[in-house]
Amino acid sequence: MIEDAFITFPKGFIATGIHVGLKKTNAPDFACIASETPCHVVGVYTTNLVKGHSLKRSMDLINSRTDFRAVLINSGNANACIGPQGVEDADLIASKFANYFGCSGSEVLTFSTGVIGQRMPTEIILSSLPQVVSSLGNTAESSHDAMHAIMTTDTVEKEAAAQIECHAGKVRIAAIAKGSGMIHPNMATMISVITTDVDMDKDLLSSLLKKISRTTYNRVSVDGDTSVCDSVIIMANGQSGVRIEENSEAFELFESALYDICEDLSRKIAADGEGATKLIEVNVTGAPTSQDAYLCVLSVCRSPLVKTAIYGEDANCGRIITALGYSGAQINPEMIDIFLGSLPVYKDGCALPFDEEVAKDILKQKEIGIEIHLNAGDFNDRMWTCDFSHDYVTINGSYRS
Amino acid sequence: MIEDAFITFPKGFIATGIHVGLKKTNAPDFACIASETPCHVVGVYTTNLVKGHSLKRSMDLINSRTDFRAVLINSGNANACIGPQGVEDADLIASKFANYFGCSGSEVLTFSTGVIGQRMPTEIILSSLPQVVSSLGNTAESSHDAMHAIMTTDTVEKEAAAQIECHAGKVRIAAIAKGSGMIHPNMATMISVITTDVDMDKDLLSSLLKKISRTTYNRVSVDGDTSVCDSVIIMANGQSGVRIEENSEAFELFESALYDICEDLSRKIAADGEGATKLIEVNVTGAPTSQDAYLCVLSVCRSPLVKTAIYGEDANCGRIITALGYSGAQINPEMIDIFLGSLPVYKDGCALPFDEEVAKDILKQKEIGIEIHLNAGDFNDRMWTCDFSHDYVTINGSYRS
Repeated sequence: MIEDAFITFPKGFIATGIHVGLKKTNAPDFACIASETPCHVVGVYTTNLVKGHSLKRSMDLINSRTDFRAVLINSGNANACIGPQGVEDADLIASKFANYFGCSGSEVLTFSTGVIGQRMPTEIILSSLPQVVSSLGNTAESSHDAMHAIMTTDTVEKEAAAQIECHAGKVRIAAIAKGSGMIHPNMATMISVITTDVDMDKDLLSSLLKKISRTTYNRVSVDGDTSVCDSVIIMANGQSGVRIEENSEAFELFESALYDICEDLSRKIAADGEGATKLIEVNVTGAPTSQDAYLCVLSVCRSPLVKTAIYGEDANCGRIITALGYSGAQINPEMIDIFLGSLPVYKDGCALPFDEEVAKDILKQKEIGIEIHLNAGDFNDRMWTCDFSHDYVTINGSYRS
Repeated sequence: MIEDAFITFPKGFIATGIHVGLKKTNAPDFACIASETPCHVVGVYTTNLVKGHSLKRSMDLINSRTDFRAVLINSGNANACIGPQGVEDADLIASKFANYFGCSGSEVLTFSTGVIGQRMPTEIILSSLPQVVSSLGNTAESSHDAMHAIMTTDTVEKEAAAQIECHAGKVRIAAIAKGSGMIHPNMATMISVITTDVDMDKDLLSSLLKKISRTTYNRVSVDGDTSVCDSVIIMANGQSGVRIEENSEAFELFESALYDICEDLSRKIAADGEGATKLIEVNVTGAPTSQDAYLCVLSVCRSPLVKTAIYGEDANCGRIITALGYSGAQINPEMIDIFLGSLPVYKDGCALPFDEEVAKDILKQKEIGIEIHLNAGDFNDRMWTCDFSHDYVTINGSYRS
């Protein structure tokens, strides 16, 4: 991982973010990340049966062709649930952009995030496309503009980058992400674009992204809702000139760097959950199956009672064991040990006496760890969430206005 | 249904509620509902794998014997997750009560609701038992005392009663309930006691309670959490002298009256969810299976985004179709119609234009209906929930203090 991360850090990428008029403020609301040469794109997507039109179009394209040149992302409108017009709008925007940029419309992917069920103001976007193309650049500033343009209720910038040095040379990876509310496995309300100049087989890159997402992007829950738009994609243009094959030392280095970036962004997404004041990391060990481990972290991370107690800095740990009890996991409550940070609070399913002041000190931190030992097997899991605050209610009580 | 309901309305029941010192206020916190003669007791219970000690003791007793005399319920402490001491405490309280009341300890059932993981102040309860017994009465006042004693964060009284007149005479049914936060199917944080003077076979009464609970008490969701303590029981003492058999006209009358009571209390529980300002009723029709119908109502009722939007009186209906999309139900998004009250907002999975003022008028009401037509089969379901407010966060951020 390197500091001063920006999405055009890998060779051959350019980006921009401008205000076209989809957000009511003057903030950037339309991003473009492009490669100067054709690049592979692989992705993981929301599992919601309802899928936005921009996303559906991109999924179809990624499944049917290999090389792409650009990704367009708008915030402020999800382009979802409006019927055939939604795909037509996305197609039109992509092909007009392609005209200005100098490629074909099918080399241009589209993603949207924002309000569902309202048609995008397509004319506004179309008339801004020349400015989008002319403002593309490879500076940190144009990268940050792109990052800001995909933010919705996000309050914190989410970007990361890494460089690995292998025998054949240097390879760079960079990423931006948005995601605040409505984030829940699998692949919920987040959009993340990862750029890299690696030269790697597309299928290998795809399976690597799926593997890493399982324990990073797909282990973030903000409110249990799963959105209709969201996706993580990698754009890989090979411009480093470094070819990486499976089962090589370089592949291990690349996997490790990509994991670090995805983990970093996932934690940032959880910590920046709507109204969040604290990042919560829940670890479960000793589950009889991986599914049981997953159900346990999921249930604790999703419990409004656990999340409001942590917001209130109230060590009401009975709510943690309660959430485990209704998780659907095969557990024996009388075997469960629970730690709040390093403080033992449950042993063999029984509450332990603990110093309330010590618990309070732990809960005052910005990052709270909950450790759960099921003592019933060898499977572990981990998930991040955030606390549930008054501001969550304020933000989501009037999202459209 | 009759007005002026109280739990001792059926013949032969007495009740009380006093303050023994479990709550920090002077409110009643210990209830007793007793029958002057032995009665059958049947119940449905939380499905949480973690079960409170008082509840576990009562479940064992109900499974192993037929006749009971009294039910003791304390609020302020869940008597859960404290180890073998929890059952010993419940046993001791029951047997001491039995001494004063004049029955055996195994004829006395125990239920607890409140904070998990703290030992009950048993001495305080034991020293108050003579007062519990001496204050038992069959007046409306003693009934209301019992109802108040089981309330925790409840703000509204929850009682209902009915009388049916059949060939052989009159039969009375009455019920009280508590339940505010942490209510979620199945049989979540609620305690409800139903009394009746019917003479009915115990197994028949048990299967009737299970059937009715499925569509009433088990169709209430406040926050998706499922508690470790809670239960609905029927005490039936036969004092009406009216024997009711299955498949009779009287049975139909009884079932209908019992259903009305359970539905009424379930709606009251949902409407009084912690911090709630509105009751939300979600109806799904046209699902391919009953499980799909259930998953749909569950997902919408559990979505913090739907619930905060309704709190904010914001007709953000994309959140409803989003919740359907990730419900796990087998649905075709392009067949879904959605109505907010009587206002069509989605048709064939596409958002309809609607008058925001009309939507606002609907959302200003205290009861909001959401109708979802899946158009994919013959199965329906219905669930109640409430909106998600700032007060929910306030109440649950400091529940123990």
